[in-house]
Amino acid sequence: MESIEVALAEHSYQISIATGNLERLGEHCRALKLGQKVMVVSNPTVFGLYGERAMAALKQANFEVSHCILPEGEQYKTLASIEQIYDLALEHGLERSSTLVALGGGVIGDMTGFAAATWLRGINVVQVPTTLLAMVDSSIGGKTGVNHPKGKNLIGAFHQPRLVVTDPQVLATLPEREFRAGMAEVIKYGIIGDRELFDRLERATSLRQQDIDPELLSTILTSSATAKAIVVSKDEHEQTGLRATLNYGHTIGHAIESATKYVVVNHGEAVAIGMVAAGRIAVALKLWTAAEAQRQDAVIDKANLTLDLPSNIDLDQIVTTLKSDKKVKAGKGVFILPSGIGDTQTIAYEPTSTAVNVVSDPLIKQVLTAMLPIAAT
Amino acid sequence: MESIEVALAEHSYQISIATGNLERLGEHCRALKLGQKVMVVSNPTVFGLYGERAMAALKQANFEVSHCILPEGEQYKTLASIEQIYDLALEHGLERSSTLVALGGGVIGDMTGFAAATWLRGINVVQVPTTLLAMVDSSIGGKTGVNHPKGKNLIGAFHQPRLVVTDPQVLATLPEREFRAGMAEVIKYGIIGDRELFDRLERATSLRQQDIDPELLSTILTSSATAKAIVVSKDEHEQTGLRATLNYGHTIGHAIESATKYVVVNHGEAVAIGMVAAGRIAVALKLWTAAEAQRQDAVIDKANLTLDLPSNIDLDQIVTTLKSDKKVKAGKGVFILPSGIGDTQTIAYEPTSTAVNVVSDPLIKQVLTAMLPIAAT
Repeated sequence: MESIEVALAEHSYQISIATGNLERLGEHCRALKLGQKVMVVSNPTVFGLYGERAMAALKQANFEVSHCILPEGEQYKTLASIEQIYDLALEHGLERSSTLVALGGGVIGDMTGFAAATWLRGINVVQVPTTLLAMVDSSIGGKTGVNHPKGKNLIGAFHQPRLVVTDPQVLATLPEREFRAGMAEVIKYGIIGDRELFDRLERATSLRQQDIDPELLSTILTSSATAKAIVVSKDEHEQTGLRATLNYGHTIGHAIESATKYVVVNHGEAVAIGMVAAGRIAVALKLWTAAEAQRQDAVIDKANLTLDLPSNIDLDQIVTTLKSDKKVKAGKGVFILPSGIGDTQTIAYEPTSTAVNVVSDPLIKQVLTAMLPIAAT
Repeated sequence: MESIEVALAEHSYQISIATGNLERLGEHCRALKLGQKVMVVSNPTVFGLYGERAMAALKQANFEVSHCILPEGEQYKTLASIEQIYDLALEHGLERSSTLVALGGGVIGDMTGFAAATWLRGINVVQVPTTLLAMVDSSIGGKTGVNHPKGKNLIGAFHQPRLVVTDPQVLATLPEREFRAGMAEVIKYGIIGDRELFDRLERATSLRQQDIDPELLSTILTSSATAKAIVVSKDEHEQTGLRATLNYGHTIGHAIESATKYVVVNHGEAVAIGMVAAGRIAVALKLWTAAEAQRQDAVIDKANLTLDLPSNIDLDQIVTTLKSDKKVKAGKGVFILPSGIGDTQTIAYEPTSTAVNVVSDPLIKQVLTAMLPIAAT
């Protein structure tokens, strides 16, 4: 069993990673002396697979357990779903000492965290991630929230979990495409700060779900969680800029998701393409060697993630979207770009600049044009 | 000008109290180096009276100012109103460095604070209270939120303001009944911890709005804000029990509001009656002298607040409501009771107990029965 600490000023917590951990969920919660009442929040698919085991483990540890099943999918990541959690929290008499358990992927985790942040001005939340993406990224760090009709994650709060309980066994039922999406974030941790993890990924013959053995999976989960925990510990509320390094591949990735209306590629697939693009921008700015960028792309390819942009994508729209990103202020933003495997630099994004040391719209379009799939060029 | 600090680990802030402060709102915000965009949130009545001056002061200090007018009244303290704030925050492009200014009483302050707590995972809020209650209580301390259809303030977050700007001049337009309601909280601070303030109130010939001179008003505002600031500084998130002392008079007060469906008495009036009841319970438990309880009641009376329960109130329902209070856990709660002017003790509430040193339902009913108005007995 691995236990990784997210060290924070007020409320440090553990990320526990172990095969069979789902069965120990009750013990883990009991050890934290959480209040008597626990409500498990999940979606029908995940609850059908793992709900009974999670509830049984909690009851075994003498918790009074209820559940709340929300409809599945990003389109239900709304305030209306949060109100469903509130209604059941009231019905089951949840108190300030009570706990919500998020059993699911990123959508369930974000919503459950936000409901916990805002019910009675804050109750406990325990994250039990069931997707690779949630295990290595979204369950750690306390970002919670829902979408506004006009933008993703605009409504939310920082609310750290009391505990993250990861059981690699549940990945057995994860669809291959979702596994791949999680691998994009894993590769990201390698590039931005963990050379050893990157080397390990590079040495693997394959990074496809069916080919990854338990030992490699364990390394992936532990290294990724550790990488995230370190960044969150040092910059809990995204104030010093360190946490921004986690956005590597995400700036262009978000723009791709938005330009394709979130139906063509999923988040991880978009991040993978975003990393390819960021790598090439770094090479063009002479920050990074073409050889290392090539090594990154090879690892992405090995995880069965595509390196090409979706066909028929509108490059002008990507550039327009980049400029309206919520992190772009007064028309200026930043890009996180690699300067080595395990190293990044923060480079200014000035859309209309002609300076050779900043990211500009013409440079982005030049790089993206070369990434259009053959059939679409 | 008085400036009182709310000293906190992460984000201390000032409460500025001065005649003419509304005109200096822009300067105050500029001194904090807040981002360029500010949105003033208010209701039609308050905005009609003070909106133009507040907006002009902010524009004068070079802020880019927009506004959001919400319907007036506690019945609009809902998530739907928060969504109106979100929509305008998006329309006006509010960023993480942007600020919401709450111009109004407790309802506007609570909602604006909650919207600020949850937009982009937290933006700045500046409180500009325009009622006595908001000036001495709700604008200070970071409690924000809205009502759930089945309970008040069940949805919320702790989110401290960056600044509280109080201008006593705006009280000139406050309805007398609302002024009185604020006086209940002022008297509370005297009883729970500020003997000097209590003495000052006791020496005044009258505590009615039209009779209070600027000097006494200044003392009231400064002493009350200081009392609240000290408690909040020591127990920001209501964890050590100290902040609970602020609930003096509120336990029975809330039950009275609830039993009369929030239409017969307002919050402050209910708190005043709650303090009378708590005082008599303290006397019955031999914690407090009847003479001091009598002095408390005389000050409450001098503020034109009633000492009697509303007629036709159902005492059984009050007792039932007390047991379902969100602070009552596993059937047990606590009462804050005075043991002197400026001193309180925390006494167990055990509904069915016959012990002589706890608050029980029979004792509560005995005290309340004696407080029924003559006509109704």
